[in-house]
Amino acid sequence: MKKEVAEMEKGLDLNRMFHPRSVALIGVSTDFTKISGRPLRFFLECGYRGQLYPVNPKYREIAGVPCYESLSAVPGEVDLAVITLPAPAVPRALDECAAKGVRAVAIISSGFAEVGGDGVRLQEELHRIATQHGIAVCGPNCSGFVYVPEKVTATFSVGLDEGFPREGPAAFVSQSGALSSYLLAEGRDRGLGFSYWITTGNECVLSFTDYLEYVLEDPKVGFVMGYLEDARNGDAFQACARRALVLDKPLILIKVGRSEIGARASVSHTGSLVGTEEVYQAVFSRHGVLRAENLDEIFDLAMLAQCSRRPRGKRVQILTNSGAAGIMMADAGSDLGLEFPDLSATTKEDLQKVMPPFASLSNPLDLTAEIVARPGLLRGAAERIAADPNVDNLAIYLGFVPGAHQRLAQDIVEVARSTEKLVLVTWFPLPPAEAREILAEAGLPLFPEPTRGMRALGKMARYVTTREQVLSRPPAPPARDSGRGQRAREMLDRVREEGRSQLSEAEAKELLRAWGIPVPRGGLARTVLEARSLADTLGGPVVMKVSSPDLPHKTEAGVIRLGVRNPKEAEQMFAELLERARTWNAAAQVQGVLVEEMIGGEVREVIVGARQDLRFGPVVTFGLGGIFVEAIRDFAVCPAPLMIEEAHDLIRRVRGWQILAGFRGRPAADLDVLARVLCEIGDLAWECRDQIAEIEINPLFVLASGGGVRAGDALAVLR
Amino acid sequence: MKKEVAEMEKGLDLNRMFHPRSVALIGVSTDFTKISGRPLRFFLECGYRGQLYPVNPKYREIAGVPCYESLSAVPGEVDLAVITLPAPAVPRALDECAAKGVRAVAIISSGFAEVGGDGVRLQEELHRIATQHGIAVCGPNCSGFVYVPEKVTATFSVGLDEGFPREGPAAFVSQSGALSSYLLAEGRDRGLGFSYWITTGNECVLSFTDYLEYVLEDPKVGFVMGYLEDARNGDAFQACARRALVLDKPLILIKVGRSEIGARASVSHTGSLVGTEEVYQAVFSRHGVLRAENLDEIFDLAMLAQCSRRPRGKRVQILTNSGAAGIMMADAGSDLGLEFPDLSATTKEDLQKVMPPFASLSNPLDLTAEIVARPGLLRGAAERIAADPNVDNLAIYLGFVPGAHQRLAQDIVEVARSTEKLVLVTWFPLPPAEAREILAEAGLPLFPEPTRGMRALGKMARYVTTREQVLSRPPAPPARDSGRGQRAREMLDRVREEGRSQLSEAEAKELLRAWGIPVPRGGLARTVLEARSLADTLGGPVVMKVSSPDLPHKTEAGVIRLGVRNPKEAEQMFAELLERARTWNAAAQVQGVLVEEMIGGEVREVIVGARQDLRFGPVVTFGLGGIFVEAIRDFAVCPAPLMIEEAHDLIRRVRGWQILAGFRGRPAADLDVLARVLCEIGDLAWECRDQIAEIEINPLFVLASGGGVRAGDALAVLR
Repeated sequence: MKKEVAEMEKGLDLNRMFHPRSVALIGVSTDFTKISGRPLRFFLECGYRGQLYPVNPKYREIAGVPCYESLSAVPGEVDLAVITLPAPAVPRALDECAAKGVRAVAIISSGFAEVGGDGVRLQEELHRIATQHGIAVCGPNCSGFVYVPEKVTATFSVGLDEGFPREGPAAFVSQSGALSSYLLAEGRDRGLGFSYWITTGNECVLSFTDYLEYVLEDPKVGFVMGYLEDARNGDAFQACARRALVLDKPLILIKVGRSEIGARASVSHTGSLVGTEEVYQAVFSRHGVLRAENLDEIFDLAMLAQCSRRPRGKRVQILTNSGAAGIMMADAGSDLGLEFPDLSATTKEDLQKVMPPFASLSNPLDLTAEIVARPGLLRGAAERIAADPNVDNLAIYLGFVPGAHQRLAQDIVEVARSTEKLVLVTWFPLPPAEAREILAEAGLPLFPEPTRGMRALGKMARYVTTREQVLSRPPAPPARDSGRGQRAREMLDRVREEGRSQLSEAEAKELLRAWGIPVPRGGLARTVLEARSLADTLGGPVVMKVSSPDLPHKTEAGVIRLGVRNPKEAEQMFAELLERARTWNAAAQVQGVLVEEMIGGEVREVIVGARQDLRFGPVVTFGLGGIFVEAIRDFAVCPAPLMIEEAHDLIRRVRGWQILAGFRGRPAADLDVLARVLCEIGDLAWECRDQIAEIEINPLFVLASGGGVRAGDALAVLR
Repeated sequence: MKKEVAEMEKGLDLNRMFHPRSVALIGVSTDFTKISGRPLRFFLECGYRGQLYPVNPKYREIAGVPCYESLSAVPGEVDLAVITLPAPAVPRALDECAAKGVRAVAIISSGFAEVGGDGVRLQEELHRIATQHGIAVCGPNCSGFVYVPEKVTATFSVGLDEGFPREGPAAFVSQSGALSSYLLAEGRDRGLGFSYWITTGNECVLSFTDYLEYVLEDPKVGFVMGYLEDARNGDAFQACARRALVLDKPLILIKVGRSEIGARASVSHTGSLVGTEEVYQAVFSRHGVLRAENLDEIFDLAMLAQCSRRPRGKRVQILTNSGAAGIMMADAGSDLGLEFPDLSATTKEDLQKVMPPFASLSNPLDLTAEIVARPGLLRGAAERIAADPNVDNLAIYLGFVPGAHQRLAQDIVEVARSTEKLVLVTWFPLPPAEAREILAEAGLPLFPEPTRGMRALGKMARYVTTREQVLSRPPAPPARDSGRGQRAREMLDRVREEGRSQLSEAEAKELLRAWGIPVPRGGLARTVLEARSLADTLGGPVVMKVSSPDLPHKTEAGVIRLGVRNPKEAEQMFAELLERARTWNAAAQVQGVLVEEMIGGEVREVIVGARQDLRFGPVVTFGLGGIFVEAIRDFAVCPAPLMIEEAHDLIRRVRGWQILAGFRGRPAADLDVLARVLCEIGDLAWECRDQIAEIEINPLFVLASGGGVRAGDALAVLR
């Protein structure tokens, strides 16, 4: 499937779609209030400068533009066709596009996969035609798209009804229709400028990530906003997210389906199952995707992304004319990891020159009502503060300052000119339009509520850090030992050939050992003599457990015994354990009894595994072991393959990870080897992603630093 | 201190403050732009109907109103004085108020405790005069207050500069000055109506809770909004919060100081240490206080509170013209505990009559663009849905609907008339003013963003549930056994008299046993013979540990031994343990060796304790035991005394509590006895709150259901 899309895409020409020299409107109506009439109306009214070809056998001309009986009757070449015909007529129209050599089509019409039944069949038909002829299709069942700089309005969106969007660096890509129109309309009011506005519809050919890939490369695009229900191709999504980091074009997404009911509604909305919330979140964190929780936040983040400056660090000095607003900002910023250190002594000394005598030079710094009474105070203080080496970012809060709004806005612009640091402004209530305009012209981000600017800043600062980390690492994971992969796959194939879908403990451990993940010394005893001999070789107390793919819960079945003291006991225990296995499940296929060294000393138990995510493929899971933590369900996930730094991050994302780092006088666990094993298990699941559905080491014993790890038990389930 | 305030308050007359028949303005200026001129300007301009007495020896009249040389020269009685003199002149003015018989004073002036030094002394002086003469003082260092219905404008707030607030059910009480003015101004724009607007300033006499107490009883008040840095009197705060529940007047608060930096800034802002965030949060949850995270949310919650209907349950049907907005609402609602069940079969059948054939009758229910195309669709569908017994609340989302805004608003009003259920509307982008006005006149809450209305609804639904729970319980905790308290206090006094601040394990256990909290069988052996005899009496293996107030970390010191098998071993161990104690800390005062039964079987370890919170007094803490959970710091707190239902709530607030409720085939722990012990430890800390700083049982062994609990170890620290 992935391969097919990739091959097909080779021929797809999104340039013709977004920069068409000519547009045919197939099924166009003369009624400009109808969905089929509105695209032409916008092309005419908004200033598109290419050639327009309305196509409808009923008319000879529409609004002064010649109308054609059919696409084949159109005299010139057609770069883009916009189809608004009823669903059953669309496949034929697409065929005609193919015949005419049209390589880009927006299908606005609905009545396809989203209605089920015949609609599904019709959509498959579209997919077939498009694939065969290499046609890039937007939709069907979408609101179309707009390319703002060239006024390409392949849409019926109400978002254009009250005016054309301001041109700017935002590209908006969305899996919603109606809401996207509302966002477009609202964006104009909030001072956001757009380049692309794209709704993806049923994604019969082009998917969310195809558009992402394309818009990211346009130099007019400074950042991408998106509404996402599900990225159908996880690999492509990760590649786009990484590319966005490389280009420093922040990806700001609303991702819905977090709740069960939301996920269910997404399925019925898009007609496809969605990936797991926790994996999406891990992918977002890994690639610095800025996740917006709601529509206010997507605008707040866009406002900050639109500004040419990025946070230079986590340290923020707050300058306010309300103590309370300053405290709210500090609270909100701290939640997001921002820091509010003191100013340097030099700056404090310097500030004394301009500050009222009673003001306390703290952070937040409250300028009080003096900000209005003393012209120059804000600028004098802020310029000094912006120059302080302890300050990475300057956050200014202002309230209602009758008569001084414009003056203060101008002062802030001067402050921003005096520094290269990020200066952001919160003004509550929002000031009059004139003051807003002064800030907007200078490119200063303005927020209408104290906590919102800080949340946006916190998330953007994290984006900057993630970007630096990711770009400082090699671009691809280190080369794999393909021989190792080959051997593992053969091992798994043998199990599959035996008609089984699950590995026994002994087999799973053999797989791990072959992969380089340490397991306890010992082996599988098939006879009582082998058991005795293994116990003898190992020396000291041993662990014995029945190995069978049919007895996954060994403790409940009573087929495990710790602390078997010597070869003689091992002999007795061999018989006893086999007897117990028979009693528990007479039908169980028993391969023998594992005899292994006991792992003792400074041991901590963790759980390490990998499973296949619907969207993102193999995903490594990590958690602390033990009953408490299973009850708390404190796990972290990361898509494979992992870099070693990501493995360390994964460990630290588990709430109680400190118990591994030395706690109450215990030595630190061997975190380096643990991190390596997380990478290895990810690599294994990646190499064998077509065979392994799930693999889990539980417990993995982690010894004290330098002691390494041992896989205490392991299970693997085949796909 | 508490007593003093209570006694003093007896005489305080807040009626005169907020409903004055006459107001003296002391230190008034003729310059109406100045802080000292603005209150008079507002009294004159906003329509106050009582008598005004400007007082300033420099003038004979101001704006046509006779001005007096001094307060004593004022001919009539004065109910309220507003003082705007420089700080050093204020004590004398307050003395004059006392002489004139003025019982309510607003001191706007700053330069008191907030500036430290002399200011502190001046404020103490104010406190002394006010207390002596029973004068209710608002401030100093405040923005004053407004009582909207009678146009009492004892303030210089810029919040009045662009118009007088709309009258309505909101009472706003705030520990901030400037921000409160901005909130007042913004409230007008958001359609919020106010009764009281009060800034508390330095709270030299009247505190946040005094105002709360007062405004709650005014029938004009429907709910209270507040900005809180710290409620200085925790008991009074809890009493107000409970009273608010009884009256069904929701308390909607912004509480800052959540972060360390925020807390630090609050201290410097208010000049007093603040209580602990986690305890505040527990108090808020207990009493159904609606906590707003930011300024948007305080308005959202107020908007919902202003509406005369309350949520009738957690079930919500979403009706939308954007599928995406519906999903965002379901996600946000689920986060807050709202539920989105299916409609009943009857309703679905009935809906078929009005719905487009392709519409899926799910939740969220997407009416698509048909909502504009088909007049009557929204109303037809919504009225049927509102009548469904599966629906507690109806949440409607609308976007940009050119030409249909007013019609749809009117339809929604009709829907709301057809039902008594809560109907809330989200409109993004906000519709034109005419449509907004239609909804506002009908009292329908309108939200500007999809997730914000759902968050407000979720919090309000939780408020309703908490209210029902709290009011269904007896109003006060059951009567205490005062004899038990007397005995405990005597026990603690004896330790104090010995000059110690910490109890040994044996003493702490004696205290617990006397209080009725089970401890293991056994006792303190002072001699080797006693140790032998105790082991003999107990039978089976015993635990032995050195009891000393100076050896709190017994495991590290090696002065604890589990599984001592018989009296003979106990004899040996007695000597060995004492020797170890000496080696570890030669100066430790050793009382002997505790010899106790081993607690085995189905035992789970938890940690139960109580400590003194700065604001709310004794607070019970609960957490699961074991090293993992200590690393995770998964604790919950609740102020004492606890009701039994609150103790059960407390247990369930710990993330991993399920391990107590039966997990992986283990029987449930004795949750009933555990809950009782949580109440008991709270009662103990409450009864002995002047002596106990901290008491902790760690571990408390919880046996299987019916088996009760045993305090494994205990420590207590005196104040």
